[in-house]
Amino acid sequence: MLHFENDYNKGAHPALLEALIATNDLGLSGYGTDEYSRRASEKIRQATMCPQAEITFLTGGTQTNQVVIDALLASYEGVIAADTGHISVHEAGAIEFSGHKVLTLPHQDGKIQASAVRQLLETFYADANHEHMVFPGMVYISHPTEYGTLYSKEELSDLATVCKDYQIPLFLDGARLGYGLAARSTDLDLPTIAELTDVFSIGGTKMGALMGEAVVFTKSNQPKHFTTIVKQHGALLAKGRLIGIQFDRLFTENLYLQLGSHAITMAEQLIGILEEKGYRFYLKSPTNQQFLLLTDSELEKLEKAGVCYGFWEKYDATYNVIRLATSWSTSQEDIDALAQIL
Amino acid sequence: MLHFENDYNKGAHPALLEALIATNDLGLSGYGTDEYSRRASEKIRQATMCPQAEITFLTGGTQTNQVVIDALLASYEGVIAADTGHISVHEAGAIEFSGHKVLTLPHQDGKIQASAVRQLLETFYADANHEHMVFPGMVYISHPTEYGTLYSKEELSDLATVCKDYQIPLFLDGARLGYGLAARSTDLDLPTIAELTDVFSIGGTKMGALMGEAVVFTKSNQPKHFTTIVKQHGALLAKGRLIGIQFDRLFTENLYLQLGSHAITMAEQLIGILEEKGYRFYLKSPTNQQFLLLTDSELEKLEKAGVCYGFWEKYDATYNVIRLATSWSTSQEDIDALAQIL
Amino acid sequence: MLHFENDYNKGAHPALLEALIATNDLGLSGYGTDEYSRRASEKIRQATMCPQAEITFLTGGTQTNQVVIDALLASYEGVIAADTGHISVHEAGAIEFSGHKVLTLPHQDGKIQASAVRQLLETFYADANHEHMVFPGMVYISHPTEYGTLYSKEELSDLATVCKDYQIPLFLDGARLGYGLAARSTDLDLPTIAELTDVFSIGGTKMGALMGEAVVFTKSNQPKHFTTIVKQHGALLAKGRLIGIQFDRLFTENLYLQLGSHAITMAEQLIGILEEKGYRFYLKSPTNQQFLLLTDSELEKLEKAGVCYGFWEKYDATYNVIRLATSWSTSQEDIDALAQIL
Amino acid sequence: MLHFENDYNKGAHPALLEALIATNDLGLSGYGTDEYSRRASEKIRQATMCPQAEITFLTGGTQTNQVVIDALLASYEGVIAADTGHISVHEAGAIEFSGHKVLTLPHQDGKIQASAVRQLLETFYADANHEHMVFPGMVYISHPTEYGTLYSKEELSDLATVCKDYQIPLFLDGARLGYGLAARSTDLDLPTIAELTDVFSIGGTKMGALMGEAVVFTKSNQPKHFTTIVKQHGALLAKGRLIGIQFDRLFTENLYLQLGSHAITMAEQLIGILEEKGYRFYLKSPTNQQFLLLTDSELEKLEKAGVCYGFWEKYDATYNVIRLATSWSTSQEDIDALAQIL
Repeated sequence: MLHFENDYNKGAHPALLEALIATNDLGLSGYGTDEYSRRASEKIRQATMCPQAEITFLTGGTQTNQVVIDALLASYEGVIAADTGHISVHEAGAIEFSGHKVLTLPHQDGKIQASAVRQLLETFYADANHEHMVFPGMVYISHPTEYGTLYSKEELSDLATVCKDYQIPLFLDGARLGYGLAARSTDLDLPTIAELTDVFSIGGTKMGALMGEAVVFTKSNQPKHFTTIVKQHGALLAKGRLIGIQFDRLFTENLYLQLGSHAITMAEQLIGILEEKGYRFYLKSPTNQQFLLLTDSELEKLEKAGVCYGFWEKYDATYNVIRLATSWSTSQEDIDALAQIL
Repeated sequence: MLHFENDYNKGAHPALLEALIATNDLGLSGYGTDEYSRRASEKIRQATMCPQAEITFLTGGTQTNQVVIDALLASYEGVIAADTGHISVHEAGAIEFSGHKVLTLPHQDGKIQASAVRQLLETFYADANHEHMVFPGMVYISHPTEYGTLYSKEELSDLATVCKDYQIPLFLDGARLGYGLAARSTDLDLPTIAELTDVFSIGGTKMGALMGEAVVFTKSNQPKHFTTIVKQHGALLAKGRLIGIQFDRLFTENLYLQLGSHAITMAEQLIGILEEKGYRFYLKSPTNQQFLLLTDSELEKLEKAGVCYGFWEKYDATYNVIRLATSWSTSQEDIDALAQIL
Repeated sequence: MLHFENDYNKGAHPALLEALIATNDLGLSGYGTDEYSRRASEKIRQATMCPQAEITFLTGGTQTNQVVIDALLASYEGVIAADTGHISVHEAGAIEFSGHKVLTLPHQDGKIQASAVRQLLETFYADANHEHMVFPGMVYISHPTEYGTLYSKEELSDLATVCKDYQIPLFLDGARLGYGLAARSTDLDLPTIAELTDVFSIGGTKMGALMGEAVVFTKSNQPKHFTTIVKQHGALLAKGRLIGIQFDRLFTENLYLQLGSHAITMAEQLIGILEEKGYRFYLKSPTNQQFLLLTDSELEKLEKAGVCYGFWEKYDATYNVIRLATSWSTSQEDIDALAQIL
Repeated sequence: MLHFENDYNKGAHPALLEALIATNDLGLSGYGTDEYSRRASEKIRQATMCPQAEITFLTGGTQTNQVVIDALLASYEGVIAADTGHISVHEAGAIEFSGHKVLTLPHQDGKIQASAVRQLLETFYADANHEHMVFPGMVYISHPTEYGTLYSKEELSDLATVCKDYQIPLFLDGARLGYGLAARSTDLDLPTIAELTDVFSIGGTKMGALMGEAVVFTKSNQPKHFTTIVKQHGALLAKGRLIGIQFDRLFTENLYLQLGSHAITMAEQLIGILEEKGYRFYLKSPTNQQFLLLTDSELEKLEKAGVCYGFWEKYDATYNVIRLATSWSTSQEDIDALAQIL
């Protein structure tokens, strides 16, 4: 089987497993108070050049979004997001479960622009009835987006400016952050992201960890008693060390970025093969996800050949949108085998 | 001052005040268990020709929507509504506060069509990832809509069919129901609404009551322990008699419909005057709300003359959308005076 | 029938009805922005000698508690209350519905003492695991309590001191406040209550209004966008005038206190009769509620004579705890007739 | 350092780590749909002799309690629990966050008895005002309890009978279940627990897994769309395989029970040593947790010797309650070293 269906179908990168094995017999304190979690936090502070960053390790992406958004919003506030945003569509109402509306804007390749956010905010405050409406209290973006696209430094900076103007936080969901950081064309690095956002997450689950996301509050703005908030959401891991140890390793010797780079290299080869064979792209992204338009019979061929892909949606009577994702675990052999099949 | 800004700027219809005065000294049991609430319920059962109808009296419209929707939905379900629906925009997130997403569809003059609902449901269940999404668990419509428009019997029947096909309830928000029932062109009466919907509300606040909405479950489908659910939402009135007595009177000698009819007659006169004077309509509705396009200087003129209107939104550089609403309390003198001013 | 079962079985005091009738034809703005609501607020500011007081009118008692508590608590905080407190027992989980735990303390005649609150807070912060627990974020007391008892100025002052020491607000639920203010033995008046609490409610429903409670924030501490919070809880009345007009009248010519005094006079007569006849008290209160121990046959006798009483609980094999409540509407004739029967 | 502070201070049992390593390169489907999760479920069905059991793997204990309780309760229902229950005290209000009250009963050594539960239910339904109260909709027990104590088969059977009589589910929180199953004196095995409860959890975190709890619905009563409910609570792990693989191993060759037995053997040696040395027990349990009364200077001695213990509370001026816990990872060397120190 060739696994291109997503970026979380394998276990963990060997170096992370080794770190877990090496520390397995240590008796450590629980709930993220262990020295590995502290050390991982310190390394993230260095990598983000953000000495005041406050870091918490959570287990999963939806959980991270729910906890961060609920912790930062007032009860009467909602969160602005692209209509394709993960929180808008694929989190089973986790944001509404915690009492908040997702205020959607039409996406452009998965992104929202500062101008649209500003217009939403202006319109809201201009509305004489806005006290009867949900206050827009935060901007949520995913980077890379659900379509693998990336914000430019200018775009992110513009979003930051709007947020500052309206005194609402900017939250960047980095479930696949490593693939974004490693993209050739990006002008956004970790320090810039830390500077321009109020809080962001660094995804581990899709970047070679068994599981785990790091939440980074960058403006000394971590909500009071955040541990209690995390616990209340059922999100406090007893053996917090697990995530701390993995992130400690990911942020040692630049591994996090290396894993991202590897996936990008594989994605570039994949794009090359697809272009060469004349496949039709639905969306060619600068990161690890590529979206194709394939016919039913082309899909059947892939399946017979043992290629796992992600099915997105019917495009029209003839075509389907499918996703092929590379990852930290995609090997040259995988790519070569896929090239043979295609 | 001439009050055309909304349909709830006066107190109560005199007959309702009289009923409150006449019963004021009676010692009655609380929380809606009194004989007037029972009697009002019985009259609503008769007026709807729905002998199994279960009726509860609540205080306000947003409260009614929150209680009904939260009571009927499973925790993982959301409610389908027009993007202009009251629950989508003007309830300050009351639906999300109770944990549910509002799944919006683009409106057409404030309405949603069965075909669009069916497509949303089909697309949802066809999506391989739908277990990661909010289940569409109910359809909400307002009738009249926020734009004063009305569903036809055929449209409502089609919505009912979709809901039956997918086994989800159809909820009709009748905050202004009387104005809809009294419209000349409507083919929807109370018994038909009771037959086609699973639950609907009969608005009192905008129909001559001090306050109060009747919730009518039509299919022996009132959730278990509904009184407790109402209490839990802070919506159980100690002196439930207040609403019971008013609805008892509204449903005596056809008063509810008469009040609706009166407002429609006034609205027709208003439309006649506006057309005669050449005003530009944004939306001419068959009920008590009319939407006009007026320039800033026209608005100023109205204000100087003491005409209260509802401001909706900027239309373009020249025009504003404004609402003129008649109601149970609009007098012939009001209309004549407005005609003079216009 | 003689109504001693509770203090909300009649309509409204005639003066309030008259005020509603007198203003019925006025076109007023909605949602509590009308001049009567403003005027009522101003009178409450004067009566409480608290010029900075911020006042909002809500419909019912449970609703008031839910809105105030949810608005003031952080998400991870709970509210300290007597285990007999209305929010602890008889609000169908309205506090938990909004996400907060009620942290109960054993009551003494319906009250909690500052020493017990302090101990709870000390114990909490001394607990090494307190970050895994609900933070005590507010103290709730009812005054009069559910047993008709009253806090003394010293007791309230001590509670205020504890709250100040721990920087948490003190909330006094005054659903029956007028009966407390009018009690002979009390040394707590409105200005003192306003001074010692951070927020309190002034009950109308049980004090002669059709419905309505005034929420009074006394320390310039009304939460931001409180109207939106109220709306989100389904608690914003379209015709807010209804409550404003009634409170305007209640706080004119000292009516609120007069109604309280009347009920107290009636209660004193009631106590006199009961003592004279040798009835056994479960709890003799300084306010309008008296609790008796009656046998089944005594209860039967009352019922046959048409006396309505409140059943509390079985006391033992022989006795039942029942409540007799006087109110603003209890007449001398009622008392005399009851005396005859007893 | 000698680790007796809790049972989750080490990583995972080597066999589980090996299973993770052995499967690391496999491309598996996400969200618990992989073959290892299926296989683990099948083994649990066999071990519980409950062929209809429906099993879901979650990450942590508080999360498990929140998801199960919220999924099974109606919105107006609360959960009955001991006042020392984990959900009552140490979950930061996670149950209230999901809208439900915890209805506490006084504990006896951490347990609640069927008679007390029955009385609570009888009193509730006998109360004329119970529609204004939170309905008791479930019974929660922990087994072993927070004090390491165990229910007998008769006690559990009695609780099951009460629950059946009132048609509410019985939920057993088995965060430390293995230590209970392995206790010498217990007459409760897995099949009996599956038979007598409606849902229970099998803890992995404290039983040698990196993390993970298995939720077992035993009566074909898993709520509809449970995956969506799990996702909505932020509790759906992308790489569900992690927990599936570990539970697959735990339920292979009886490992789960062996780990429990080992901890019990260590605990018996610990008790022997403590008794021999004349230490004063606060509570001597049949499982892996022992509670002692130690003076400040005795604590200091332990700390100096590098013994980690769990601090519970001040007992009186002289004594402190502390916990010593053995676990799957406690070695004979640990015990011998501790014996030396004591």
